[in-house]
Amino acid sequence: MRIIGIDPGTSVTGIGIIETDGRGTCSPVFYGSLKFPDKDLWVTLPDCHRQMIEIIQTYRPAQAAIEDVFYGTNVKSTVKLAHLRGVVLAVLGLLGIPVAAYSPASVKKTVAGYGRADKEQLRFLIQHELNIDLSAEPHDVSDALAVAVCHAQHMVFQQE
Amino acid sequence: MRIIGIDPGTSVTGIGIIETDGRGTCSPVFYGSLKFPDKDLWVTLPDCHRQMIEIIQTYRPAQAAIEDVFYGTNVKSTVKLAHLRGVVLAVLGLLGIPVAAYSPASVKKTVAGYGRADKEQLRFLIQHELNIDLSAEPHDVSDALAVAVCHAQHMVFQQE
Repeated sequence: MRIIGIDPGTSVTGIGIIETDGRGTCSPVFYGSLKFPDKDLWVTLPDCHRQMIEIIQTYRPAQAAIEDVFYGTNVKSTVKLAHLRGVVLAVLGLLGIPVAAYSPASVKKTVAGYGRADKEQLRFLIQHELNIDLSAEPHDVSDALAVAVCHAQHMVFQQE
Repeated sequence: MRIIGIDPGTSVTGIGIIETDGRGTCSPVFYGSLKFPDKDLWVTLPDCHRQMIEIIQTYRPAQAAIEDVFYGTNVKSTVKLAHLRGVVLAVLGLLGIPVAAYSPASVKKTVAGYGRADKEQLRFLIQHELNIDLSAEPHDVSDALAVAVCHAQHMVFQQE
């Protein structure tokens, strides 16, 4: 089954698409990022909509996984991010793709066995798990792959 | 020129469409609300997308006006609302409709001459301005019409 993992961000949104055999073994299909150079949400939101549609129509994932909203100290940034996350969820819904949401701690605990692992540790583990080199990619990409792998592993737990 | 005013809400989103002669005189075209009975954002967001597209394709407004995000005390509600507002802005952007955002205080000041007018006063003034009866409508509808009227009046100021 093909899973798309998404790490939403208003400048860079990480995308990681993997194939899982349903027993927890994952292989990479695509990873990269949607870039939004314009600071203005009026430009970014329709742009995000178009890019999400394109990536989903190209890779046709069966399921999606996304990080829960993290309520940081900067409420304005969180609210701006929520606008973009809303567009991502709407596109997934319109295309009939079920979405699972995981907290950042849950992703870390599932992938790294430790809920407070840092982004560098997570990237190292994801590189190892998928046998790829992510050193040239931003953390948004390893985070997106991590939430996809997290979902693949939760699907195994649900079957047991 | 036709203006759509939008008061976004995750249960009820108010819609008010008016025609303005460019000199501040406004007449009603359509008013009502998009209802989202499902509490789940996975359902509400694509539903909002579909309903927004339908209403815009039916009434073909040239411009849109929406309220700025109000940072209330309940951060979770604000973040939930921002998801929906993101979908509304994406749809407007995709359909090429320019959007102006006004703070609630600015809408009240423009329409009622007083930035702290309450929703009931605003409804009364909008009913009078547009010569309609909104007594059976929720405040979301009068708020949506108010932000459309506010935008029409700001356009007059810009011309002067």
